[in-house]
Amino acid sequence: MNDRARSSPLLRRLLQLLVFVFASSAALTSQAATPPEQIIIDTDIGDDVDDAFAVALALRSPELQILGITTTFGDTETRAKLLDRLLGETGYPNIPVAAGAASSTNSTFTQHRYAEGGKFARASHSRAADFILDQIRRNPGQITLIAIGPLGNIGALIDKDPKTFRKLRRVVMMGGSIARRYRDLGYFPDRGPEPEWNIKNDIPSAQKLFASGVPIFMMPLDSTQLKLDEVKRAILFQAGTPLTDALTLLYHEWGQETPTLFDVMTLAYILNPKLCPTKPLHISVDEKGFTRSESGPPNAEVCLDSDSEAFFRFYIPRVDGR
Amino acid sequence: MNDRARSSPLLRRLLQLLVFVFASSAALTSQAATPPEQIIIDTDIGDDVDDAFAVALALRSPELQILGITTTFGDTETRAKLLDRLLGETGYPNIPVAAGAASSTNSTFTQHRYAEGGKFARASHSRAADFILDQIRRNPGQITLIAIGPLGNIGALIDKDPKTFRKLRRVVMMGGSIARRYRDLGYFPDRGPEPEWNIKNDIPSAQKLFASGVPIFMMPLDSTQLKLDEVKRAILFQAGTPLTDALTLLYHEWGQETPTLFDVMTLAYILNPKLCPTKPLHISVDEKGFTRSESGPPNAEVCLDSDSEAFFRFYIPRVDGR
Amino acid sequence: MNDRARSSPLLRRLLQLLVFVFASSAALTSQAATPPEQIIIDTDIGDDVDDAFAVALALRSPELQILGITTTFGDTETRAKLLDRLLGETGYPNIPVAAGAASSTNSTFTQHRYAEGGKFARASHSRAADFILDQIRRNPGQITLIAIGPLGNIGALIDKDPKTFRKLRRVVMMGGSIARRYRDLGYFPDRGPEPEWNIKNDIPSAQKLFASGVPIFMMPLDSTQLKLDEVKRAILFQAGTPLTDALTLLYHEWGQETPTLFDVMTLAYILNPKLCPTKPLHISVDEKGFTRSESGPPNAEVCLDSDSEAFFRFYIPRVDGR
Amino acid sequence: MNDRARSSPLLRRLLQLLVFVFASSAALTSQAATPPEQIIIDTDIGDDVDDAFAVALALRSPELQILGITTTFGDTETRAKLLDRLLGETGYPNIPVAAGAASSTNSTFTQHRYAEGGKFARASHSRAADFILDQIRRNPGQITLIAIGPLGNIGALIDKDPKTFRKLRRVVMMGGSIARRYRDLGYFPDRGPEPEWNIKNDIPSAQKLFASGVPIFMMPLDSTQLKLDEVKRAILFQAGTPLTDALTLLYHEWGQETPTLFDVMTLAYILNPKLCPTKPLHISVDEKGFTRSESGPPNAEVCLDSDSEAFFRFYIPRVDGR
Repeated sequence: MNDRARSSPLLRRLLQLLVFVFASSAALTSQAATPPEQIIIDTDIGDDVDDAFAVALALRSPELQILGITTTFGDTETRAKLLDRLLGETGYPNIPVAAGAASSTNSTFTQHRYAEGGKFARASHSRAADFILDQIRRNPGQITLIAIGPLGNIGALIDKDPKTFRKLRRVVMMGGSIARRYRDLGYFPDRGPEPEWNIKNDIPSAQKLFASGVPIFMMPLDSTQLKLDEVKRAILFQAGTPLTDALTLLYHEWGQETPTLFDVMTLAYILNPKLCPTKPLHISVDEKGFTRSESGPPNAEVCLDSDSEAFFRFYIPRVDGR
Repeated sequence: MNDRARSSPLLRRLLQLLVFVFASSAALTSQAATPPEQIIIDTDIGDDVDDAFAVALALRSPELQILGITTTFGDTETRAKLLDRLLGETGYPNIPVAAGAASSTNSTFTQHRYAEGGKFARASHSRAADFILDQIRRNPGQITLIAIGPLGNIGALIDKDPKTFRKLRRVVMMGGSIARRYRDLGYFPDRGPEPEWNIKNDIPSAQKLFASGVPIFMMPLDSTQLKLDEVKRAILFQAGTPLTDALTLLYHEWGQETPTLFDVMTLAYILNPKLCPTKPLHISVDEKGFTRSESGPPNAEVCLDSDSEAFFRFYIPRVDGR
Repeated sequence: MNDRARSSPLLRRLLQLLVFVFASSAALTSQAATPPEQIIIDTDIGDDVDDAFAVALALRSPELQILGITTTFGDTETRAKLLDRLLGETGYPNIPVAAGAASSTNSTFTQHRYAEGGKFARASHSRAADFILDQIRRNPGQITLIAIGPLGNIGALIDKDPKTFRKLRRVVMMGGSIARRYRDLGYFPDRGPEPEWNIKNDIPSAQKLFASGVPIFMMPLDSTQLKLDEVKRAILFQAGTPLTDALTLLYHEWGQETPTLFDVMTLAYILNPKLCPTKPLHISVDEKGFTRSESGPPNAEVCLDSDSEAFFRFYIPRVDGR
Repeated sequence: MNDRARSSPLLRRLLQLLVFVFASSAALTSQAATPPEQIIIDTDIGDDVDDAFAVALALRSPELQILGITTTFGDTETRAKLLDRLLGETGYPNIPVAAGAASSTNSTFTQHRYAEGGKFARASHSRAADFILDQIRRNPGQITLIAIGPLGNIGALIDKDPKTFRKLRRVVMMGGSIARRYRDLGYFPDRGPEPEWNIKNDIPSAQKLFASGVPIFMMPLDSTQLKLDEVKRAILFQAGTPLTDALTLLYHEWGQETPTLFDVMTLAYILNPKLCPTKPLHISVDEKGFTRSESGPPNAEVCLDSDSEAFFRFYIPRVDGR
């Protein structure tokens, strides 16, 4: 570094800042030139808290056009109300919300108080399967369906109209476990796969999806155990924007200490594929919900590892929004 | 307990519940018969987080009629905006908010993001001293002034119109330190008094107040180190009401772990004097901000000890509001 | 307070300190004049963490003579090794440790690493039932048996030699649930009783105990939900004594956030009965493990409520030991 | 993956495990063939808690031969006693501990209780400067001096015998700030350098070191803000080894929530240079303690960025030791 640069630290700082801002916005700008990617998010928001963090990332991403959000699994109507409020509080009251078929579950709807206050609650919600099929017909080959809950809606779509379903551009899903199970964080030897929540709660639908022929991008437990630790929480929960305020409240209703942002990797992958490099595998879903990599023609691009710190360096500034 | 009762556990539970509900509402009912007590809260809300918890208790207390809330110390206008939003979010947009004279301070306004979003912000705020004097003139001998910040507004009132000031029914204040200092929690020998924040940040005003002749009820450090620990926070922050949501957000912007609810004891005392038994003392404020109990005619009722658990058994169900 | 006292704050502080020290030691002194109470602690130390905090209080109490500690429930041998180390690390290697009969359980032995290091491990442990019977025979009518685990050892004693068992001075036990269940903390209406751990894990033994005729002092869930919150933990875990160091390590192996010091109330009650006032009841243990208060001649002194803050003001300074 | 492998998941798991164990031990084995690197650690252990985590890594690394540990800054004798106990408790009572010259400081010795218990305390400690010079003379060109405190001892060495000092193989130090300051974690634009603790507390010694001609490997704030968050703490503090037990106790005496393992990167770099890639820079220390990168011949290899997650995947399994 020469003396000239040294003689003006302020100028240098300014340059650094410009480089940062430019680098941050470059991707957006270049993508903004291309039309935004059309997405639908299919979510079981309200039990675990990562779904809310995934929706938050989508809302803060101009590269995406959110055609709608659909709810799946369990009390789908209350999940839809939770989304009504989340979207209303954060300035997106016009994003459609559709409810999937309700199902019985032992899972705890931790965030029901947020949903039940009636804030921004819509008069009614259309049916998820109808909504998605309608959207696909209007935008054939264009839509990325982001599946971050058990796959009941997807099974219903395939049952109802497999031909239209195949006109999805792709499905990007959180689900499955190839070589790591929950709590395999890379500090100790991996303990091998286990049936994962989104798969095991609707195994037949998962099997239909992997046999459907639609391009699948799969983010299993292996690459999605992203821990929102105390340092990162303090940053996000002090940001004081309507979006981070909503996440703060949902975090507290969830009631545990450390969220694992499984679902969020689907969005992060769409926005920046380097955050979760994939490789083609043939995935087979067995009757217990194991997702095995077997010999055969690839039916999914699967992300088997990720850099947690790189993920958060992408996620936090974007969602923080200060 | 006889066999009959035993034979119907459901009936017994129902009776218990009725007794509880009745006991809870009895005080309210009996007081509701008497007119509510007129109060004005004078607060430095926005730095430490206990002021917000104090305002929350007032809002949930039908025994009180909040004539207005005035801000004191430091950036009084931003404090007023914080109150605008807090009152707006929780359904009390019509409670008047008046701003005291701004002053310079090194104290950190931790909760400024909550205040600055512009939510429910009012076009302007009247002057605190004018507002309070006007209210006293309209309700002579009726108003309890609750002082939970440094005493600048009170000093200004006394300077401006001591005669009207004396027409307050009483001042209930958090401030001072008689025999205990901060962190003297009763587990180890008390380490003796220290100058306390609300006093030492405006010693002349404190001296004027104790010489004013207005009845003073004083809650010093000795009886107000009420720790909102993790168990209690989990309950309040999962309640999911607009009021507890606001407290949750302000807690996070405050950014520390354990709030000490100093200020809240003033309200709790007004609502239930048994929570902080007082005795008459002659209090003298020295030039360093010590509040000494000296010989002389009593000029304050001072609460020297309290039962923290009893306080929270009163506070939590009332503010939780589920 | 006159001017003379005021003129010498140092002298005053000194006097305060003397008063405190005197008050603290007075009970000990007066009791030291009387012979210490002979106790045996029967514990399932190693699963939940409150047992360790109970043993810690006993070790710091000159009013008590610990004849021995016996282990009960599950892996009693590893529990005995945990005690070997705890006693060894804290300077009490000569207190006898005896192991009860092992039993199968689904309970998690959270603190096994502390136990398994081999530190201070004794070559062998005598049998709990034999040990206790032998001690009763040597000290008839003298021994307080403190039962803070499931009651298997006690059932075995009664089966083996009911006559000797009746020569206990008394049993002080943590167990049962009269009107409150776990998480009934007094902030909301109590939800009524539930079968409590120490009872429901050996119902026949509990029934035998309440029918035994030995004086029973019972501390149920109603009076023992004593939360060691973050403020109290910070104090104890920074004390840096061998005893608090052991508690710190066991706390971390336990692996949760907030210990509830159920078991400790038995010891606290023996040392200071005012901390848990009892009343005589006839307790009946049903086949599901409910402990019902029924009509009939009293068979237990039961503590139905306690002041948590008073408990900790007793516990912390004594165990802290600085 | 072919059918054969699939048909035996157990075998496959076994193979995975073998690969992991082999990979883990390979580095050790290959290095064990070469003689271990001789190191001396110069530390201000006892104030911040990262020094203890650095010493812990050294103790668990067969690639290193610890010739001794020297204390610097403030109460060097109590720091030496802390090391006496730490080394004694963990089975290394024969590693020499030498104390540097004491100095006055406002820094808080948070972990003094651990040090003062007298456990494993040695009768006396030799003088740090004498000890280091003596070791260099015995092992010329062999020793890596790891500097993780203010640089007083190093300044004394250079003053006393610059010729011998130059016979160090190298100095690996934590210190300085090139482009990032404390709390610049990569989520938001870096705010530029600031004077860093180890430099600013003895600027003249830092200037001497950078002018000394000894090879310097420098780990500044830019690459050392390694957060031991709640997930990582839970793993380490439940390991239950003598070493992790010591870290647990020191963590609690330190008394804050999230340790930043600044100092540990020096050791990690020595053991695995890929964890902190360096580049040659000319570093100049100004009168305020800024460490500026200027034009001129390189006098240090400086690590300007690191992968926090890679660091912990190295650190945790090695120190956990289960």
